[in-house]
Amino acid sequence: MARIVMKFGGTSMAGIERIRSVAARVKREAEAGNQVAVVVSAMAGETDRLVGFCREASPLYDPREYDVVVAAGEQVTSGLLAIALQAIGVPARSWLGWQLPIHTDDAFAKARIGTIDTAALDESLARGEVAVIPGFQGKSVDGRVTTLGRGGSDTSAVAVAAAMKADRCDIYTDVDGVYTTDPRIVPRARKLAKVTYEEMLELASVGAKVLQTRSVGLAMKEKVRVQVLSSFTDADAPMADTLPGTMIVAEEEITEVERQLITGIAHDKNEAKITLTAVPDKPGAVAAIFEPLAAASINVDMIIQNIAHGSASTDVTFTVPSADLARSIEALNQGREAIGFGELIHDTRVAKISVVGVGMRSHAGVASTMFTTLGARGINIQAISTSEIKVSVLIHEDETELAVRVLHTAYGLDAEEAA
Amino acid sequence: MARIVMKFGGTSMAGIERIRSVAARVKREAEAGNQVAVVVSAMAGETDRLVGFCREASPLYDPREYDVVVAAGEQVTSGLLAIALQAIGVPARSWLGWQLPIHTDDAFAKARIGTIDTAALDESLARGEVAVIPGFQGKSVDGRVTTLGRGGSDTSAVAVAAAMKADRCDIYTDVDGVYTTDPRIVPRARKLAKVTYEEMLELASVGAKVLQTRSVGLAMKEKVRVQVLSSFTDADAPMADTLPGTMIVAEEEITEVERQLITGIAHDKNEAKITLTAVPDKPGAVAAIFEPLAAASINVDMIIQNIAHGSASTDVTFTVPSADLARSIEALNQGREAIGFGELIHDTRVAKISVVGVGMRSHAGVASTMFTTLGARGINIQAISTSEIKVSVLIHEDETELAVRVLHTAYGLDAEEAA
Repeated sequence: MARIVMKFGGTSMAGIERIRSVAARVKREAEAGNQVAVVVSAMAGETDRLVGFCREASPLYDPREYDVVVAAGEQVTSGLLAIALQAIGVPARSWLGWQLPIHTDDAFAKARIGTIDTAALDESLARGEVAVIPGFQGKSVDGRVTTLGRGGSDTSAVAVAAAMKADRCDIYTDVDGVYTTDPRIVPRARKLAKVTYEEMLELASVGAKVLQTRSVGLAMKEKVRVQVLSSFTDADAPMADTLPGTMIVAEEEITEVERQLITGIAHDKNEAKITLTAVPDKPGAVAAIFEPLAAASINVDMIIQNIAHGSASTDVTFTVPSADLARSIEALNQGREAIGFGELIHDTRVAKISVVGVGMRSHAGVASTMFTTLGARGINIQAISTSEIKVSVLIHEDETELAVRVLHTAYGLDAEEAA
Repeated sequence: MARIVMKFGGTSMAGIERIRSVAARVKREAEAGNQVAVVVSAMAGETDRLVGFCREASPLYDPREYDVVVAAGEQVTSGLLAIALQAIGVPARSWLGWQLPIHTDDAFAKARIGTIDTAALDESLARGEVAVIPGFQGKSVDGRVTTLGRGGSDTSAVAVAAAMKADRCDIYTDVDGVYTTDPRIVPRARKLAKVTYEEMLELASVGAKVLQTRSVGLAMKEKVRVQVLSSFTDADAPMADTLPGTMIVAEEEITEVERQLITGIAHDKNEAKITLTAVPDKPGAVAAIFEPLAAASINVDMIIQNIAHGSASTDVTFTVPSADLARSIEALNQGREAIGFGELIHDTRVAKISVVGVGMRSHAGVASTMFTTLGARGINIQAISTSEIKVSVLIHEDETELAVRVLHTAYGLDAEEAA
């Protein structure tokens, strides 16, 4: 017997027919003798509808009341899945955020989960009931409804898995696993059997939209084994523990044989590049640039400052999320006097390409292979940033697909031809 | 300063524009220095949508999970009204059924309210906040979501008013008060300024669809002064305490001058007549008829048994709700041997006309006026039943409007011509 958390997203919950097929899948796990908790999202589109109501009622809505409104979406699907499970003979009951409860902090609309009481849940599971838990919601210290922010249901699932010491947290999504790169760009991309938390964090944050980043961080912290699976394979497919999804695990769970130098190549077109020219080359100048951006809660990613040769000023280049470009420009222009820059040049036609792999810790030459490969194809590198397990470069967005393909081949990631 | 409960139905909450106009109305009561709690229904159509999901998931849905699903509708509108109130400068917060809490029994999907904790509510009102409370929902003894059954929000409003010792419970609805009869039938029907709980109970249960019957019973028991008002008069109309709605009050609050012999005339076409012929005229025979109907939870209304003259058998006639006719016939046919009747004759083309008024307690001749008036127009009376403050007759449904009109005139209820 294993303890399993299964998480289903909004597409899987969109309508009773799909909820029934989720129920069938849950039934097979339960009938295999497992203790099962299911975490569900709202029906696809429902959260947008509820958020729209709040915005229409007041653009400056109270996040405490917003949470009351939007938490209703998952409440509905959790009750419906419990009904659908009972209808096929599986004992089940829903546990709302305030019922377990799932304790969170008071950061309404973007709350963080603290502890989860599992006493009642454990009893229910021991009785053989499937527990159906609405994702995305919790209860604040003073007993109000909280939500975790968009995409928070992945985090709910991982947190529940950690609290109930689950053997596995299966995230059913509209892709069937994590790939070496985007299969729409590289048809020979391979599905990864295993990926480490660290790699997944880098892949998720640079555009491999499989799991919410925060949920991966939590899984790493709590050592929850997460499996990404497709919710679209039919209900007669093999069970989750034999399904060919991707397991996200600690590095030590990946054997020497399984270990790759490079795990995957991600791309992200949602960044914009900003260059400030003629910034005074003196102490405190760079701080003056990034202080107003931080105050506006804008995440700055890649930063390049060239050493000034024989001049009292230098150019500073960095990237911000495209969605924050307008606010960034406004913040920088307001700080113009304090910063003392010449021109502000911005460019949204850029893409960030990242090569990710824990193997690069112990292998030199990964970055050099990247630069050589791109250079050989005439792809100009506008900026570079590196972490322990990642090398990222900024290029012109028109060259995204070409760059991903040549790098995928260069690092030996292409799948072999079908036999 | 007064304490006021305001209740708004689904039509008033159907969309943000209408919720804004509810907020404007609430604001005026709050700014007049009153402590205000607002009880809201789900958006019109939303409860039907959620009930539809449950039925689709399983016709034999678990009522505990059904309650989780359908309670979401009022949760959404309570959060939205709180946001809309804050947007116009009125401090407000929502209090869900489990947060106050509103304690109910465990009769899921048709729960009854027990006590309501008002400590937190009182503090909130004392701080000058408007409390927004979702109607229709509560919390069971073991901490699960309950709902009160369709139309339960009226009952929630009255229960909240009783618990917080409100001076008045204003029910905003799509009619602007209680009339002497249906104004669509009798254009000269008059709006009643006051009506007693007992009269309202009789009027509500015989088809004057203004308030849920259970809420009137609760108001009578808890001595809550209920006012029925229109939600469609514009927001600049005079405030509720001067609006010409109908107050539902205890009999002693109605002065001698205000008191009428007859308060109103109700009609109900939703009954069906059943006659069993040749029922043995012996002890226990009637019990044998009604026992299977009671077992099937079918409410039998009017019952007529004629004395058998010179025969060992008699005919028994009674009415049941039209919706229960098929089940009634089935139950009676199954009990045919035990009852021993000849034929079962049924007729849905009947209408019940009721004359209601506490004044008839002290005045003879009310029933006789009814029979004479109907007889003079050639309307045949098929059955009669009476209570202390009501006389009802069963007639052919085609004669409903005629009967209501002639009775309205006969009891002197017609409004005077406009001056």
